[in-house]
Amino acid sequence: MDTYTFLGPEGTFTEMALLKVPGAAEAVRVPSVNAAAALAKVRSGECDAAMLPIENSVEGGVSATLDAIASGQALRIIREVIVPVSFVLAAQPGVDLGSVVRVGTHPHAWAQTRIWADRNIPNAEYIPVTSTGAAAHALVSGAPDYQAAICARPVAERLGLAILAENIEDNSGAVTRFVLVARPGALPEATGADKTTVAIPLPEDRPGALMEILDQFATRGVNLSRIESRPTGQFLGHYFFSIDADGHIAEARMAEALRALHRISPQIRFMGSYPRADAQVPEIPAHTTDRVFDQAQRWFDGLLAE
Amino acid sequence: MDTYTFLGPEGTFTEMALLKVPGAAEAVRVPSVNAAAALAKVRSGECDAAMLPIENSVEGGVSATLDAIASGQALRIIREVIVPVSFVLAAQPGVDLGSVVRVGTHPHAWAQTRIWADRNIPNAEYIPVTSTGAAAHALVSGAPDYQAAICARPVAERLGLAILAENIEDNSGAVTRFVLVARPGALPEATGADKTTVAIPLPEDRPGALMEILDQFATRGVNLSRIESRPTGQFLGHYFFSIDADGHIAEARMAEALRALHRISPQIRFMGSYPRADAQVPEIPAHTTDRVFDQAQRWFDGLLAE
Amino acid sequence: MDTYTFLGPEGTFTEMALLKVPGAAEAVRVPSVNAAAALAKVRSGECDAAMLPIENSVEGGVSATLDAIASGQALRIIREVIVPVSFVLAAQPGVDLGSVVRVGTHPHAWAQTRIWADRNIPNAEYIPVTSTGAAAHALVSGAPDYQAAICARPVAERLGLAILAENIEDNSGAVTRFVLVARPGALPEATGADKTTVAIPLPEDRPGALMEILDQFATRGVNLSRIESRPTGQFLGHYFFSIDADGHIAEARMAEALRALHRISPQIRFMGSYPRADAQVPEIPAHTTDRVFDQAQRWFDGLLAE
Amino acid sequence: MDTYTFLGPEGTFTEMALLKVPGAAEAVRVPSVNAAAALAKVRSGECDAAMLPIENSVEGGVSATLDAIASGQALRIIREVIVPVSFVLAAQPGVDLGSVVRVGTHPHAWAQTRIWADRNIPNAEYIPVTSTGAAAHALVSGAPDYQAAICARPVAERLGLAILAENIEDNSGAVTRFVLVARPGALPEATGADKTTVAIPLPEDRPGALMEILDQFATRGVNLSRIESRPTGQFLGHYFFSIDADGHIAEARMAEALRALHRISPQIRFMGSYPRADAQVPEIPAHTTDRVFDQAQRWFDGLLAE
Repeated sequence: MDTYTFLGPEGTFTEMALLKVPGAAEAVRVPSVNAAAALAKVRSGECDAAMLPIENSVEGGVSATLDAIASGQALRIIREVIVPVSFVLAAQPGVDLGSVVRVGTHPHAWAQTRIWADRNIPNAEYIPVTSTGAAAHALVSGAPDYQAAICARPVAERLGLAILAENIEDNSGAVTRFVLVARPGALPEATGADKTTVAIPLPEDRPGALMEILDQFATRGVNLSRIESRPTGQFLGHYFFSIDADGHIAEARMAEALRALHRISPQIRFMGSYPRADAQVPEIPAHTTDRVFDQAQRWFDGLLAE
Repeated sequence: MDTYTFLGPEGTFTEMALLKVPGAAEAVRVPSVNAAAALAKVRSGECDAAMLPIENSVEGGVSATLDAIASGQALRIIREVIVPVSFVLAAQPGVDLGSVVRVGTHPHAWAQTRIWADRNIPNAEYIPVTSTGAAAHALVSGAPDYQAAICARPVAERLGLAILAENIEDNSGAVTRFVLVARPGALPEATGADKTTVAIPLPEDRPGALMEILDQFATRGVNLSRIESRPTGQFLGHYFFSIDADGHIAEARMAEALRALHRISPQIRFMGSYPRADAQVPEIPAHTTDRVFDQAQRWFDGLLAE
Repeated sequence: MDTYTFLGPEGTFTEMALLKVPGAAEAVRVPSVNAAAALAKVRSGECDAAMLPIENSVEGGVSATLDAIASGQALRIIREVIVPVSFVLAAQPGVDLGSVVRVGTHPHAWAQTRIWADRNIPNAEYIPVTSTGAAAHALVSGAPDYQAAICARPVAERLGLAILAENIEDNSGAVTRFVLVARPGALPEATGADKTTVAIPLPEDRPGALMEILDQFATRGVNLSRIESRPTGQFLGHYFFSIDADGHIAEARMAEALRALHRISPQIRFMGSYPRADAQVPEIPAHTTDRVFDQAQRWFDGLLAE
Repeated sequence: MDTYTFLGPEGTFTEMALLKVPGAAEAVRVPSVNAAAALAKVRSGECDAAMLPIENSVEGGVSATLDAIASGQALRIIREVIVPVSFVLAAQPGVDLGSVVRVGTHPHAWAQTRIWADRNIPNAEYIPVTSTGAAAHALVSGAPDYQAAICARPVAERLGLAILAENIEDNSGAVTRFVLVARPGALPEATGADKTTVAIPLPEDRPGALMEILDQFATRGVNLSRIESRPTGQFLGHYFFSIDADGHIAEARMAEALRALHRISPQIRFMGSYPRADAQVPEIPAHTTDRVFDQAQRWFDGLLAE
């Protein structure tokens, strides 16, 4: 692939996620102002793929990302990336901590550094900026009304900013999940540690409809790692389910589950099978391996061939 | 088919069931002393099929019949027959009710005519015989120590016996179910109103093992019309399930359920798909018809072909 | 208790089961001709309890026993007894094996000794008798047209018969289960290894109705050791479920499951909580012990008391 | 109640939601910068209740709100409010549409008015502001570098701004859900159209753990209107479920479900039972009404009292 887009501007955690993709460092990287704009670039063919945050993001767009992928022309998630969430306080060289009276950053980053800020710059005023990357860039190329920015370390380093403090996040160990989205046609091969993402409109709002859908996975030994009911937007009370399931569409148990879901809810959207970022191999119940599926099929064919 | 066996002797309800099979009236009909003997004749090729009682029988062998079919060399149920359970009191012409002091019949038939007997022949002594048919035959060809037999009307008529009383059963409307069993190779075509019978060893004795098995049917919209846990005989506490499910192995939802059961319990025995005696068409959930299975398969194939 | 009845005549396996009940050897023991007659004696107060076979019996009445308990005036199972199924060939002293040309026994006992009989008395003719006990008694007090009886060893010994062969059953290790039935009022205390028996009419014949009932047990961690769909007799296609569940009505998880079943099927019949014959303590899921039920109740009460 | 806080500043949709609460218009209303700050004011007693967005918000804080309520000292949702999402373009009187070259608003509001903006002010530059309310206020009390703000109509009217365009949102009919959060002690009475919100840590990451939790609701006829798996933040792969269920803790079926969930996952957080904003009465399965629970309890008590 040659051209990527990402939730910009440059220097966001999302760009950091993109740079983990082999070849992306050398490729063209086009920032987008939001998930919808990024996906539009992919759908139109202007970009080959888009990197977008889907969980725990410090820069917004999270819950809407999967909705945007699920709506409109079909797209596929082809990769998952995890990035640790860690912040630095950066400023132009020569600025020291004592002279910081206003700090620019994204609201979520500000919220996630309250403990450090209350202790170390308790009187600093907060200036909201649209992203942590933009906050850092403005220190170099603009004339912002703040002296320091809270951002990711790589951005500060690339811009030649001084690091006044590091690891200032309240929760060390937090991570953000991102996905790389492309047009259909590039289904990643099964690795044994994969995820499959689907959006499934709920056929009816009744006790049991949700269970009936989830049961299609459970009956076939497919574990779920994420489930979210989302309003369809048509009117309140109508829902679809956004689900990450352990496994790959090329595996028999997942294939059978997907076909069953299509029968129950024909508007189901398949959004991709792709390697898990943590490469953790799921435990597959012994009676749902591909080999056992093959054995059952041969037994069954034998019955019909009598 | 040319040669049938049945739970004899001649004149049992089981033979009445057999005579309902087209062509059986003109075919060779060999009585067997019990289900095991009948099935042995089919397995050896001596007979082409065996008619045996499986529910509510007045002549025993009931719960053991399905066990016997499920054990040993594979057999197939190819037909189900229902026969009303109705009794007459029969005797040699010239014998009247007042002279009946001993009555011969099978213990179950005696048990099912207690009300009539207590009112009409309260002092009659009961002489157990191995079948209602044998009780009637002995009146003609033997020298039994009873004057009248409780049996089915056709037997009495065929033997030229006089009917002293009819419809003497306690529960009018009762029926008995029978099955016709053959060697594999003659799978009846799907009629839209079919049953499939299976025996499924329970893989483990734990909360949920039974549910896991039944869920394979429920998830795919397959209703069950009979379920019975049966000890395997190996040792107490180990069980298999004997199940009648609505539908035919040629239907997609049943086919998928059977393959799933084979994965969970590879020792599953398929015992046949055959028309229901009552020809009642089951209600199939809209999302589990063959047409919807085809649509889901095409959708799925399209995903892989991208 | 002073007066017991059992599926007679004297010398049946059922009487052997009854003699395992503490005090029964010294009590009055009245044989009954079938399960219905035995239960009638209990319902009328003529007897205090009835011992009846419910599984694998060699002497019939099995599937009907639980139906008979479930119908009519309420009764309770208060004890379960297991008896090994083992046969001897018995005759009057002085009769040797070579002179046995006809053998009397119950049909089920004959069926279960085919292997030994084919090898050792291949030409012997079979004379059906209504019970193994009756076959043995006739050798002493009657003039039967057979020289030897297949029966249980204790009967032969009590009657002073000679044992021509022992352990002649085809399947060594087979057992029969029996239950002791009384009028309500004597609920046995929980031992930690108990069974609860219920009969549950199926509210509707649809996919899911059976699952809904079984789910009430599974959701609360209650394992089932026996399940049987039985026609209600009203008309074909209407069913009730006869179920043995692990646990006692005094245990919270069983109590909650029973109440839930009553909500779904108000005609449910509670047929007793009683110690398992094998005294095997069931594995209870950690989150369904009485202690955990108490903790949950206290938590819940705390919420309401805020 | 006398003192409320809300996700500020004044003029947000969240304040509009708060003003729908009877008495809130006359009460003290304290804006908070984010959900955590608002909840801290309630926990400390500084405020009596906080109004916060939980779905589809144009002003952020959404997915984090329920996490914040579930963490730390117990709080209760006591009311749900729905507000239509509709925007106006507002400016100082005298400014006309042609002179608008820069527009200030919250990023989500900008994203939701793209269609109107592309058609009517295609060349206008976007200036991000921390809330739609703040964007409007700055037009009056500050010196912003934009000529018009996208905000809610009530804010524009209160501030005396001119409305240059109205109903400019892309999706008419969209709504946002808000909740009013207080300290425990004021459980709203059941109305028959209620919701119960809980957070349930997943006890184990295995196929079936999710189903086991959801089954506790389904088995008892409790429908779910929202379900979301959320990372606990401890480390990736550990989850809790955030769930809205139809019904009130004072209803028997909900009470039994909550106790069952406490047994499975003792760290469950009860976050309140409160009236649904849409007042829609849920359909309750006939066998799970309070009346049927009472009947089952009486039947059960009768069994124990024998």
